[in-house]
Amino acid sequence: MVEPKLRQAVAKYVREHQDEFIERLKRFCRQPSVSSQDLGIDEMRELVLRELQADGVATRVLPCETAPPVYGELQAGRSKTILLYNHFDVQPPEPLAEWTTPPFEPTVRDGRLYARGATDNKGNIVARLSALQAIKHVIGEYPINVKFLIDGEEEVNSPSLPALAREYRDLLEADWVLWEDTLREGDVPVISLGSKAICTLELRCKTASTDFHSAFAGVYPSAAWRMVHALASMKDADGKILIDGFYDDVRKPSPAFQKLQKEQPEVDLEAITKKFGIRRFVGNVGAQDFRRQYVASPTCNISGVSSGYTGKGSKNVLPAEARARVDMRLVPDQDAQKAYELLCRHLKKRGFDDIEVIPDRYGSKASMSAIDERALDVLVKAVECGYGCKPIVESISSGGTPMWIAAEILGKPVMAFGVGHPSHRTHAPNENVMLSEFSAQILTMAEFFLGLGTDGGTA
Amino acid sequence: MVEPKLRQAVAKYVREHQDEFIERLKRFCRQPSVSSQDLGIDEMRELVLRELQADGVATRVLPCETAPPVYGELQAGRSKTILLYNHFDVQPPEPLAEWTTPPFEPTVRDGRLYARGATDNKGNIVARLSALQAIKHVIGEYPINVKFLIDGEEEVNSPSLPALAREYRDLLEADWVLWEDTLREGDVPVISLGSKAICTLELRCKTASTDFHSAFAGVYPSAAWRMVHALASMKDADGKILIDGFYDDVRKPSPAFQKLQKEQPEVDLEAITKKFGIRRFVGNVGAQDFRRQYVASPTCNISGVSSGYTGKGSKNVLPAEARARVDMRLVPDQDAQKAYELLCRHLKKRGFDDIEVIPDRYGSKASMSAIDERALDVLVKAVECGYGCKPIVESISSGGTPMWIAAEILGKPVMAFGVGHPSHRTHAPNENVMLSEFSAQILTMAEFFLGLGTDGGTA
Repeated sequence: MVEPKLRQAVAKYVREHQDEFIERLKRFCRQPSVSSQDLGIDEMRELVLRELQADGVATRVLPCETAPPVYGELQAGRSKTILLYNHFDVQPPEPLAEWTTPPFEPTVRDGRLYARGATDNKGNIVARLSALQAIKHVIGEYPINVKFLIDGEEEVNSPSLPALAREYRDLLEADWVLWEDTLREGDVPVISLGSKAICTLELRCKTASTDFHSAFAGVYPSAAWRMVHALASMKDADGKILIDGFYDDVRKPSPAFQKLQKEQPEVDLEAITKKFGIRRFVGNVGAQDFRRQYVASPTCNISGVSSGYTGKGSKNVLPAEARARVDMRLVPDQDAQKAYELLCRHLKKRGFDDIEVIPDRYGSKASMSAIDERALDVLVKAVECGYGCKPIVESISSGGTPMWIAAEILGKPVMAFGVGHPSHRTHAPNENVMLSEFSAQILTMAEFFLGLGTDGGTA
Repeated sequence: MVEPKLRQAVAKYVREHQDEFIERLKRFCRQPSVSSQDLGIDEMRELVLRELQADGVATRVLPCETAPPVYGELQAGRSKTILLYNHFDVQPPEPLAEWTTPPFEPTVRDGRLYARGATDNKGNIVARLSALQAIKHVIGEYPINVKFLIDGEEEVNSPSLPALAREYRDLLEADWVLWEDTLREGDVPVISLGSKAICTLELRCKTASTDFHSAFAGVYPSAAWRMVHALASMKDADGKILIDGFYDDVRKPSPAFQKLQKEQPEVDLEAITKKFGIRRFVGNVGAQDFRRQYVASPTCNISGVSSGYTGKGSKNVLPAEARARVDMRLVPDQDAQKAYELLCRHLKKRGFDDIEVIPDRYGSKASMSAIDERALDVLVKAVECGYGCKPIVESISSGGTPMWIAAEILGKPVMAFGVGHPSHRTHAPNENVMLSEFSAQILTMAEFFLGLGTDGGTA
């Protein structure tokens, strides 16, 4: 699609300007922007505005009561427009003692740039800007119109974004939306077309005002047993979720999705088994159904359970309190609030009125975007070009980003791809980005923008 | 049974010598004797020998490879003999910071003597010696022959005692055995005629070499869910233990036991409900069956369960490890080793071969002594005399002392009674004995020994 000569010229430019791009990423990373701690958010927004303006992007701030996002527009006079979603806030850097170099002093060592935000999400912002810069210098213009939406509160669940998307729907109008990032599967790049919703809850049980000596176990109630029985009522040993009505709203994947899923490579179960010492997978799923089960199934996970004493030595106690943390990942058209209510009803119906269900977080809705086969094909080929291997396309990734806003509010095909890699330690101490991955990402983005343009994006 | 005049004379003696008895108890408590830390055991044994000898008791040490007990004999030339079991070792005093005054510096304040061992079990030793001393001074002789067996390793499960009891069966021959202590039910004194066995276990589950992101919950195994399902298979929500064969060996209580149980007062369930904020009891048991269920039922308790993260904030983790601690209290003729094996078989049969069962402690066997109605009657009346209220007689108490040695090896009727009280903080920091309880115990013991003698114990 993209002329080999053009591709080579872009690659040459990227190679020759790598240091400059890295310096720009360092500038982004040097500015703290921790939304959950309200640290440096305004300063970071100013920096983003300046950087976009330097590239000729017309900018504005979309006002809201929490942290306003930056909107930007590169009006190239083309018939097709892509909206790029990113975010300029980052996770807290704590625990600080575990960082080899300080989180907001970007440092290059061993082929990686270390800093909070180096991957998530400043690495992606700068890679996209760098790709556009390379194209502009090589061909003197932009192959498509580009819109930017750079969120300032993604790491705190984007509280204002749904309302803003509704309010500025016309402004954000585009043919496609490119979301911020994805993970790899091992080393293989992954493109994601949707994401699950997340609903985290805490279950608490209190059966008496005090623990008792375990001698009373024949007569006094045990919070530990109550919790065990309540949890056991929620899921069977084969992984089937037993909460009444839980699966009722699950949307049947479209034929296009089913086709896409069938095209993905089989997972190497033997390798996973060996690597992690796993003896059996949920429901004894085999290689053939593994990816479908991973992608399409809603989950109900116990992220923590505790009651009584499990420390050193023994303590013959009859625990009066128990707690469990549960997270559910939901697929379209399940609803997190409804899942919570179903669970409450389920427990009550079975007599577990001594189990309190405390909703913790309803993160994002699930999204399953319409598929634009041509745009997806351009992105797949761009990834092959940048990374030298065919990406996996995941119809729904498991995770918690507000992609549903693009799919459900803007109603546009959305694809996510980015610089994420397991070794980049996203959200953890020593977050980093491999410089080779950063370059591959710039090349991929350039190829993608050019591909969208040449294949019908020109005016 | 006991002449009122004699009783008054003994009471007068006890009143007039209380300070001396307390000084003696302080002497006992000043000497550390922590068997699990091998601290002061030999010195304590020497002290016990000296104290018994000072009261005219013929003593010897019964040699064994662990901590030898003290044997003593007051040969009064009577036809009837009682064997008194006690122990001179104590629980570790830690955590030391929680003691108001140091554990081995006995201190009287607010009507209590504070020291490790003040109740368990030095308070009982000294109360019994004091009662005998009072009798000797008042009537110039002993109403029955008295044998002493004072264990040095009760707090570490008396490893040598069964073999010693078999070896010295003739030496330990007696008509009755009086065990070391009991608890109260609220404030009401309790006499116990037997005890449950205890079997503590740890269940461990490891489903992978590492925790995963909870996004993988649809396909990767969860140790938390495995543990929940394994535990749920062991007991139903009504408290019925589901381990295959668990109840097979439970001995049917004799008619004498059943009669005794029926004679005990009903538990005040409303008061318990109110005091502890309990909404329902195990199996919704009512007041009528409460005591029987408490006493006669073997138990399966979760003393602790933990997996994943339940700390502050949330952590979306799929836990690869889980552990649970389980303690079972068994009745005659259940066997702790067999209970462990039954559980292993039960789990294996249900496919839980990823749950490891680690036996922790097989504490004592269960014991259900023969009932000597006359001796029991004497003890009940003695308690009424000392405490001013009718005691509850418990056919099997829940607790872990090696009473079975008296019942099963020596084959004698055994009764337990002592100075134990919920406020005495046995095994905990600030262990103490109320001085009023200590005096009541001395009077009770004196009345008991005199009663056994006058009612047929004389030669």
